[in-house]
Amino acid sequence: MLYIIGLGLSDEKDITMKGLEAIKSCERVYLEAYTSILMEKLYEKELILADREMVESQSDDILLNADKINVAFLVVGDPFGATTHADLIIRAKELSIPIQTIHNASIMNAVGACGLQLYNFGQTISIPLFTSNWRPDSFYDRIKENRNLGLHTLCLLDIKVKEQSIENLARGRKIYEPPRYMTINQAIEQLLEIEENRKQNAYTSETLAIGIARLGSLTEQLIKAGTLNQLLSEDFGPPLHSLVIVGNKMHILEVDYMRYFVVDKNKFDEIVKRDYKI
Amino acid sequence: MLYIIGLGLSDEKDITMKGLEAIKSCERVYLEAYTSILMEKLYEKELILADREMVESQSDDILLNADKINVAFLVVGDPFGATTHADLIIRAKELSIPIQTIHNASIMNAVGACGLQLYNFGQTISIPLFTSNWRPDSFYDRIKENRNLGLHTLCLLDIKVKEQSIENLARGRKIYEPPRYMTINQAIEQLLEIEENRKQNAYTSETLAIGIARLGSLTEQLIKAGTLNQLLSEDFGPPLHSLVIVGNKMHILEVDYMRYFVVDKNKFDEIVKRDYKI
Repeated sequence: MLYIIGLGLSDEKDITMKGLEAIKSCERVYLEAYTSILMEKLYEKELILADREMVESQSDDILLNADKINVAFLVVGDPFGATTHADLIIRAKELSIPIQTIHNASIMNAVGACGLQLYNFGQTISIPLFTSNWRPDSFYDRIKENRNLGLHTLCLLDIKVKEQSIENLARGRKIYEPPRYMTINQAIEQLLEIEENRKQNAYTSETLAIGIARLGSLTEQLIKAGTLNQLLSEDFGPPLHSLVIVGNKMHILEVDYMRYFVVDKNKFDEIVKRDYKI
Repeated sequence: MLYIIGLGLSDEKDITMKGLEAIKSCERVYLEAYTSILMEKLYEKELILADREMVESQSDDILLNADKINVAFLVVGDPFGATTHADLIIRAKELSIPIQTIHNASIMNAVGACGLQLYNFGQTISIPLFTSNWRPDSFYDRIKENRNLGLHTLCLLDIKVKEQSIENLARGRKIYEPPRYMTINQAIEQLLEIEENRKQNAYTSETLAIGIARLGSLTEQLIKAGTLNQLLSEDFGPPLHSLVIVGNKMHILEVDYMRYFVVDKNKFDEIVKRDYKI
């Protein structure tokens, strides 16, 4: 049996009882590495770190004998969250290996903690970290499609893992830089730059947004709401960060709830009154 | 402290370790009743059933002393899933009661198990059970908006709880009928009736869809895919049921994965080739 087990959002205690029982039944336990900052010690099992490259190129090693023994593949969030594991699952199906998925919370549903209703979200997008010569902006069209319908947009922010310095790359040394996590501030900066270039009014610096940091952590979670311009200079602390761009069709309960998080209530009330349909 | 704790999708072992620890620290534990079919015995605590009416009219009883002692409110799925608990949380904030949310899986993210990528979903809708004189269809416009963008639509199917028979209602007897759960077949029947009336081609009887029953159950989960017309006569067994209407912009991995669930592979391949953009 191949168990694909979601670890949830924040730390080792976010695993479900069902997930923990499954892990204890397994001979090999892989942990999808680098996609988030999680626990090291956990679950009284030796963990084999499996990065994206390993999952893609050595999936048959991961699946070895999984028709006879139990093997677990642990993923941060839910197995079908932002990163899907469709390729590994399809490979297992080809090999007739039975699969069980054990779900957990992910940003895709827990984002409701920001006070907006999940019903009113459109497509989720990913924002990549710009480099000096790579500044893709196709997600701008997705935000525009959502906002044309009055819908909210969940923006997942880039995580750079297994990057090599130019020197290490040139010398063929498999030495990797520490992971880099995009901040809410960087995301907003890029968003405003794209709007500046595209000028199609998908949003403006006065569009309301919600920054969410360390979602699911009982002690470290931080949510702040305001205009994109206001949030640009707010400090959200360490990763992970996510951003929601608020659609202009809001339910009154959404306004009431979101208001607990706003950095400037007067400005918020003024903008809601001016730009949002309640 | 008020803990709002997600129970996950299927049974009592879907709770997280963090959620279980929180429950054990609580003096009173409420269970949101009737919104799903879950466990009865659990967690070594006496449970107080709290239906929608109680949450709305007696929220201050639920919150009594929660500034001094721990109180848990358990909800099926995630606290911010389909049913939000914004009203209870806002009331707690008004009373300056500290709140901790413990997330879990919900249909809103676990729907990825059907093989479609969460990125490619638009707005989620709810389909209510028609009665002879109440046949609302505003969700038709939402499906159309999603499909105009090529996006998938998650349809949550109605659950009728605390219904009274006309006789009991007339006599003022608070006796309730057993809960009723909309089936995938009923949902499709209604969808086709609405398209028949509206004739705006939001979808047709040949549109691809995926029926999902008892999502998250290791032994009872069932997923079948096909045209709306094909799924109309498929048996999905006991509740809970959900339905996904597939958008016509599909990733090749989505096609490959979904194909494992189709009831008729030839028909599926023919329709994908004819109507879908891969």
